[in-house]
Order: sequence, then structure tokens, then C-alpha cells
Amino acid sequence: MTYADRWLLPDGVEEILPAEAKAIDSLRRRLLDLYSTWGYDMVIPPLLEYTDSLLIGLGRDVDLLTFKVTDQLSGRTLGIRADITPQTARMDAHSFNRTGANRLCYAGHVVHTRPKNPLATRTPIQAGLEFYGEPGVAADIEVVSLLLESLQVAGLPRLHIDLGHVGIYRAIAADASLTKGQEDTFFELLQRKASTEIRAWVDANIADPAKAQLFLSLPRLAGNKSVLQKARDLFSGVKAAQAAVDQLDEVARVIEQRYPAAELYFDLGELRGYHYLTGLVFAAFAPGYGNPIASGGRYDHIGEVFGRARPATGFAVDITAISKLGLLNKVGVPAIAVIETGNTQQWEMMQNLRSQGQRIIAVSEGANLAELGCDRQLLLQDGRYKVVAL
Amino acid sequence: MTYADRWLLPDGVEEILPAEAKAIDSLRRRLLDLYSTWGYDMVIPPLLEYTDSLLIGLGRDVDLLTFKVTDQLSGRTLGIRADITPQTARMDAHSFNRTGANRLCYAGHVVHTRPKNPLATRTPIQAGLEFYGEPGVAADIEVVSLLLESLQVAGLPRLHIDLGHVGIYRAIAADASLTKGQEDTFFELLQRKASTEIRAWVDANIADPAKAQLFLSLPRLAGNKSVLQKARDLFSGVKAAQAAVDQLDEVARVIEQRYPAAELYFDLGELRGYHYLTGLVFAAFAPGYGNPIASGGRYDHIGEVFGRARPATGFAVDITAISKLGLLNKVGVPAIAVIETGNTQQWEMMQNLRSQGQRIIAVSEGANLAELGCDRQLLLQDGRYKVVAL
Repeated sequence: MTYADRWLLPDGVEEILPAEAKAIDSLRRRLLDLYSTWGYDMVIPPLLEYTDSLLIGLGRDVDLLTFKVTDQLSGRTLGIRADITPQTARMDAHSFNRTGANRLCYAGHVVHTRPKNPLATRTPIQAGLEFYGEPGVAADIEVVSLLLESLQVAGLPRLHIDLGHVGIYRAIAADASLTKGQEDTFFELLQRKASTEIRAWVDANIADPAKAQLFLSLPRLAGNKSVLQKARDLFSGVKAAQAAVDQLDEVARVIEQRYPAAELYFDLGELRGYHYLTGLVFAAFAPGYGNPIASGGRYDHIGEVFGRARPATGFAVDITAISKLGLLNKVGVPAIAVIETGNTQQWEMMQNLRSQGQRIIAVSEGANLAELGCDRQLLLQDGRYKVVAL
Repeated sequence: MTYADRWLLPDGVEEILPAEAKAIDSLRRRLLDLYSTWGYDMVIPPLLEYTDSLLIGLGRDVDLLTFKVTDQLSGRTLGIRADITPQTARMDAHSFNRTGANRLCYAGHVVHTRPKNPLATRTPIQAGLEFYGEPGVAADIEVVSLLLESLQVAGLPRLHIDLGHVGIYRAIAADASLTKGQEDTFFELLQRKASTEIRAWVDANIADPAKAQLFLSLPRLAGNKSVLQKARDLFSGVKAAQAAVDQLDEVARVIEQRYPAAELYFDLGELRGYHYLTGLVFAAFAPGYGNPIASGGRYDHIGEVFGRARPATGFAVDITAISKLGLLNKVGVPAIAVIETGNTQQWEMMQNLRSQGQRIIAVSEGANLAELGCDRQLLLQDGRYKVVAL
């Protein structure tokens, strides 16, 4: 490698320059401050852990996304975190003595071996929160409220979220006594919305026409709140599916009341994270970005591998994706230029202005003040230091 | 691995729990805000890069501290950053068009294969800054000022810094026409302050008694400002060494004037980072932590490997180490408990308090309010919602 290409970055690995870095850091702070006002405590999980702790129950996707290295101290395999949720689950299970509700939030980098989608970076910055210890729908409502609050804080023009519930498919699969293999196959067809294949599979696998109808209707149960009434009618014979629809209905009712501007879209065939999620599932989308800019759901079993299963619901916001949408405010901070003379009065004035949050830049004679973002200068006039426009 | 030990973290890898996480995040913000008021622009370099870019001119130490992985997209070797400075140097050389001064700052995790010292974590959080494009002593003074400002912001009880200058040893080595091998050997002895070996080496390698005296005096040139006068007398025949002492003197003069509380300790035999530093070198220590909690210096050649050598000086603060000193304020945020009823007036009151920065926690009946940090509650009294003490 000659020096000519030493400055190249790997594909999908990006550095963030000042205007965007400032906007990202500002969003990071505002999200953490928001979560704090709702009672969420910040934690800082480490960037790497034993893979045995990191890759728990989140399915093969996360495994393949995780860079592994050998620990020189223990000889065991470490993973660079590709997701922060399992870390907070481990912390909730073992680092806290809280028996009741435990609200945690975080912000930081994760690293992916490959971009999750063609537009994604391999080193996204995420902020997120997890609510442990509360099994009820109140926790789901709180978390979905905070998802909408996060979208507001990020300045998204529309508060559009998708809601689903993995309990519906689980219930009709159980009701039809699907084997694990059958359940996975239909899940895969459903994810691809492969309607021809879905019909063929249902014809071949579900003998009872009434039950077959449930499977066939699942991909089409998407749209506004009227979907929930349709689902309630359709699933009248499957109690667990009914209960899941009722939960969705309750969440929607409160969210509509709290956030009249929110656009709720229901998709009962949407099963993102099906392999570890256990209840409500939700995601936020923005125009111009095909993948969710935030997503989450309920995952009540995640603590089991750490010996302490706890109810859990939460989400992560992809700050890097939001920044790529160009919605963040990238206004620079205007600065005051000063040519330092060593004068004590000048120094005190500079420090005083800095303590007020002003940006004071010591420049040399002939410096490019525009490049430095200066719109004013500190000058000695009539024996006093004054800030004057350039 | 059974679930019983899935929660274990690797040695030297730490998670940070709420009280400390909040204190660390607060320090991170205050440092970045401080640097901004001095004109430093935040950048966010990626967590990993090609090792060819990361491991430039910083010596073998950084190479051994860096975890390497194979990039699945390019087949090349990536390194998880063990130091952020080379990243900012690459960015200054290639991502900015600035021809004059370029002030950059950052905050983030680095990862080390092994702890740098017995007390250190392998995943420290650093904040730091780099000042590119200014060769003069004014830049060194600005950077040392910001080091002291950082110590103040971190609440360190004493503003103690060590100052040295690698130009002094370089000059007397050149004056004595040492070979590279000789220079490295004596450097290594000097680092260990191995006085017997130093004497034996000087006897065997430096024939001229006057020059020998310079090498023998180097480890003893440590103490308050009087050291500089001693050095000036000793090195009167070595012009480049004189110039280095003059630079130190100029920095000390201005710093003493600006920060009367600062304790400056000079150590002319201290050569931390000798292999890449080129001028002033400095570090901050705190009682109870044997390693520097912040360190830096001038490194004018670092951009060369990227095809654009630029003057450079800067430092990094080890936020994790400062936190371990127990000096950060870990006061929790008192919260207001509320049992949600679905009442609109209650919800508006909660949101209103949150927008004022108050922490409002929705609790269930019988929740452990002390565990949640609540000292007040929101109650309906005489038809109105009021915050009352618990």
C-alpha cells in the first residue's frame, strides 16, 4: 500500500466530518436527555464481549454480522458488538439488583461485518432504550410513545410507524399444529410476501379450509386501524391471536390519544425479529430510506440464557441513517477571531466569552477567517476589547 | 459455556453502570463543549479502518495493542482503533481542504488487545483534540492551556502537568553523532531510568567528556522551572537543544501567567512517544493513578504517510481513568413517581414536567419508589395534579 491510497476507507466504513458530527452528537444528547426525563438510566456496555454472551438468541443474522477476534488473555473468542440489546439484557439480568422495572438507555457505535442494506454503513451509531421487568401493555405503550418522541426530537417530518405483533402468527401456527419446520418455511414465505408460493404452501400443508383462510389472509392484513377489526373477525376462533389483536388495539388507542399527528400503519404479516421477539413489534420509516430508521419490540425470553428471564421491550434508533436523510440541522457555530497579543485583559475577555459559550479562535495574521467560520473579531478599540463584525 | 457464566466479562473489559455512565457522559459533553468554544470542530472517525492507515508511524506498541480482523468485502486486514490520533491525521491530510489551521476534537471508545497498565481497561473512552497546520509555539501553548482546562472541567483537585521536549535528546544525540542503534539503546535506558547502565553505556560509547556529561545529566534534569536554567547552561554548545529549552520556557511563561494554580513539572529525560513525537511532550497525572490521565505532544511528521505532512500537536484525555479516580460527580437525578390513569390532564402535566427537564417515572401500584430514585409523586389533589414530596 503506497501512501497514495493509505487514506482510503473500507467500503461501508465512514468517517463523519464536523458539520454532520456536530448534528449527530446533538441528536445523541437530545435522545439521551429525553430518555432520562422518562426515567431511563444510561449504561455504557463494552464494545466487545465473549461471543457466548453477545450472540444469544438473536438468530444467525447477528452472528454473521459480528466480527470475531481471539482474546489474548483468555484464548476465547470475543465479538465486536453488532447489537447493544443483548448487552443490556445481560446487564439487567446480572449487574442490577432491580426486581421490578428497570429502564436502561444507551448510545454508541456498533460494527457490522457487512452493510445490513445497500445504503447502510458498517459502523452505525445507535441510541436506544430497553424496559425490563414489566410484562404489561403499559410498558409497550411507554416504549412506542418514546419511539414517537424520538422521531420528533430527530425532526422527522412525519411520525409514521408500523405496528405488528408476532403473537398472531405464533397463535395461528400453534392452532394449526404446524411443526417447527413448517412454521419456519411459512415465515420465510411471509417475509418475502411471496403470494404464489404462499398459496401453494397453504394448499399443500393446511387441510382445514377455515384455518387455511387464516394463513392466506395474513399477508393482506396491512393498513390502517380497520385492519384490527378485520383481524378480530377472522381470528375469532384463535384465542391467543385475539389477545394479540387486543393488545395492538390498546396500544393504538392510547398512542392516537397522546400523539394525534402519529400515522399508525398495521402490518400483521410483518414479523421482523420473529426468532427472538415475543409480542408487539414496531418500526419507524422515513421517506427516502427503505429500511427502518428505528425498530424494536417485546422480547421476553432474552434473559433466559443469563439465568434470569425478564419481561423486556425496547427499540434502537439508527442515528447514522437519520443523519443520511439530511434532516439534521447542520448549522455551523459562528466564531470570533482574535489575534493574541499576550495582553492579560485580552485573555480575560477571551475566557469570559468562552465561558458564555462563545467560540473564540486564536488566528495568525492573514489567516483565512471565512474558512475558520469567523464572522466577528475581538479588537482593541479606545483602550477596550470589543467584539466587532468582520 | 453454561448460562451460569455467560454474564462474565473478559478481564479488563468493563461495563459502566448508570451513576458512572451519567458522570462519564457529562464529562464527555463538557469536554467537547469546551473544545468547541476554542474553535475545535468535532469529528467522528470510524471504529475500524485498514491497518495500513491505522498503524502509521506510531511504533510497534500501537500495532500490538490493535485487534485485527479480516474484511469480508475486500479481503484486507482491518484494525479496531487503539488510538484516534492517526485517524484525525488521515482526516486532516485528506478529508479537509484546509491549508491553514485545522482544529479537530473527538470523543469515543478505543480498544486494546491488552490493558496498557495493570489498572487500565481494555476499552477506554477518550476525548481529545488535535491542532494541525500551526508549527509555532503558540499552538503548543493553546494545546497545553486546553489540557489544563480539561483537568479543571474534570474536577481534578490539582492541575499538575509534566512537560518535556523530545528535541533535547534528539539534539544531543545528533551532536554526539550517535548511530540509530546507539540512539535507541540509550533511549531505552533513559526510559527505565537505569542509572548504573546509563553510566556504563556512556563510558563505553561517548569519548568526549563534555558530551558524556550531557547524556549523564539528562535523567537528572527533572523538577521545577529551575531545571530549564540548568539545561540552558549545560546545553550551551548544542544549538538545537537550546532552542528546545527556549520553547519549553516560553510555554511555561505563558501557562504560569494564564493558570497561576497550575503545577508545572519539567522532565527533560521523559521521552514518552519519542518514536513519533517531534517537539513538546506533556502529560497530566493525578494522585492514585500511576499512569497519565491525559497525554500528548507535537508530532509534525504524522501526515507524511498520507502524502501531506502537516505540523500537528494535540492530546487525549483518558475519561475512563478519570472516572476510576472517583472524582466525578455521581449524583442521581431525583424523579417524580406517577401512577398513570389515562387521564389527559395527568398526561399533559407529565409531558410538561418532562419538557422542563424533570424526570417522571410511570410506576405500578406497590413499586419500590426508592429503587427507582423517586423523591416526589404526582398526585390528584382537589381536582388538580400536583407534585408532592413522598
